[in-house]
Parts: sequence; C-alpha cells; structure tokens
Amino acid sequence: MVTTESLKDTVLDAAKEVFESMVFTSLEESCAAVSPSDTAFLASITFHGDIQGCLSVHCDPPCARSIAAGMLCAGTGEELGDGDIIDALGEVANMVMGGVKARIQDQIKNVEISIPSVIHGRELQSRPGEGTTRIGIPVTIGQQVPAQLSLLYRRHNSQESLPE
Amino acid sequence: MVTTESLKDTVLDAAKEVFESMVFTSLEESCAAVSPSDTAFLASITFHGDIQGCLSVHCDPPCARSIAAGMLCAGTGEELGDGDIIDALGEVANMVMGGVKARIQDQIKNVEISIPSVIHGRELQSRPGEGTTRIGIPVTIGQQVPAQLSLLYRRHNSQESLPE
Repeated sequence: MVTTESLKDTVLDAAKEVFESMVFTSLEESCAAVSPSDTAFLASITFHGDIQGCLSVHCDPPCARSIAAGMLCAGTGEELGDGDIIDALGEVANMVMGGVKARIQDQIKNVEISIPSVIHGRELQSRPGEGTTRIGIPVTIGQQVPAQLSLLYRRHNSQESLPE
Repeated sequence: MVTTESLKDTVLDAAKEVFESMVFTSLEESCAAVSPSDTAFLASITFHGDIQGCLSVHCDPPCARSIAAGMLCAGTGEELGDGDIIDALGEVANMVMGGVKARIQDQIKNVEISIPSVIHGRELQSRPGEGTTRIGIPVTIGQQVPAQLSLLYRRHNSQESLPE
C-alpha cells in the first residue's frame, strides 16, 4: 500500500538515483531545511490521474548552477547560460517524478505527468490546496549543499489523504 | 495563424471572460507591472502537445483574497482559509488556460492542460528555458488592483518561437 511515509521514501529513492546517474553527484536526506529567505529556484512538475499534485526541487542559485554543470558535464570555469540552468532544473524535476511514477505504478496505475516549470524568487513555498498533504524532504547534494524536495498530493476526486 | 501578438490577445480575452463570469469583477490590461519585491502568489498551469509552456497569474495577498471572495461569493467580513485562496487562484489559472485552449484549437489542435500549482514568495518570476518565449501582461482587476498574467511557451520538439 502507498502511504505518506512510503511516498516520502519513494521520492528520496528516485531523487538519489537521478542525482547519482544524471547529475553525477550524491543526494542524502538531511535535517536542516533550506533557509526560506534565500534567493532560490523552485522547479516544479505537476501530475494527475488516480493521485494528483506537484513535486518540486527547491535550491539556491549556486546549487542550481552545480546541478546544471553536473548534468551537462561542464567544467568549473565554463559559463552556463540562464536557459541551461532552467532547463537542467526542470529536467531534474521531470526525471525524479518519472522515477516516482515507475516506483508506484504497481499500486497507483493512472498517473499522468506534465512538463516542468521553474520559478525564481525569495521565500518560495509551494502552497497546498484544500485536502492536500505536503511531504517536505530537506536534502544535501554533493559536498553538503542544502536543497529541499517537496511533494504535495491528494487522491483524485477525494478529500482523503493516504494513510500516514 | 497564431502569433505571439495574437496569443497575448487570446490570454487577455480568456482572462477577461473568466474574471467577469466567475470572479464577478473586471480585468483590464494596464501599463504598470506588479512590483516584483512584493510578497505574492503565483498560480501556474502547464500545458503540452503541439505547443508547450506555462500560464501564470501573479498577484499580491489582498488581490488573491479578493479573487477567492469573488469566486466563492463571500461577504467582506467573511474569513477565508488559506486553502480556499490557493484553490481559487489555481482554479482561475485553470479556467483562463481552458479559455486559451478553446480559442486556439482551430489552429493548434493538440494541447493537453495539466493541474494548477500555487507558489507563495517574494520577487517571484517564471523563468523561461531555452527557446521559450515569454508574454507578460500587466493587468488591473476590479478597482485598480494590479496583477500580472504571463505565458511562457515554445512549439513542441522545436526551438522555434511563433512569429511575432
């Protein structure tokens, strides 16, 4: 059965795989959340079907640049354009959500994934609607760079959350 | 032919209809953009198919509350929960995008709309990826309340933008 706790592990597991195989760095759960006052990027991707919601990756600009550099195998001196960074972050959100879908499809068959979008700003927070559950997962990427994964979700046509 | 200019008019036309018929207030194009330093909500909805991108509605908290109150026909003294406001803003983005889809479907047939998501933060800005065009439309809602509509888009499997 898919529960809030198992979904948290699923998101973390999918993100670890994406960061190891596509960004060529590690990702570990941490206990320190990203400071909400920092300027940051938030890459989000929505999904709908038997479960609906939004998965997001929240990180500061140096972290975003290092994710893009990792994905594009760019050297440390190489200048990356804003568009490259936005596309890389969106692609990370897309791949993590793809990994989540693959991991839950035995139990939740109908999940349609949209395309990612990337927001830049300060004190960013995905806000849940009525009946939505939020799972926040603070992580560190590579050499202790903080970031945050979030999953907001609710079951389709239902105000019910999954079991804890 | 759908052009960047015609798409701007389409977004504005769809938004006017939604605000008049569902929020029971007017919406007009303005020349003053929302100050990016304000605390704000950004309701976004992505779409993909023959055209892909993200439509968003950007407004400050009092404007968000008045949109929710309008949609829910709430009295001025009535307290609205955070979830009500988030759901109302997401629904506005959803309906405006539905109106855009209906207006372009003669020319762009395949457009799949996702579910909306709502972000809260400061200095919010949707960031375009490579090959994406941004259309920003400052508007005033009701009694001169400023807000901003944005459409980021690109043609599917193409770096081409639409003609100006």
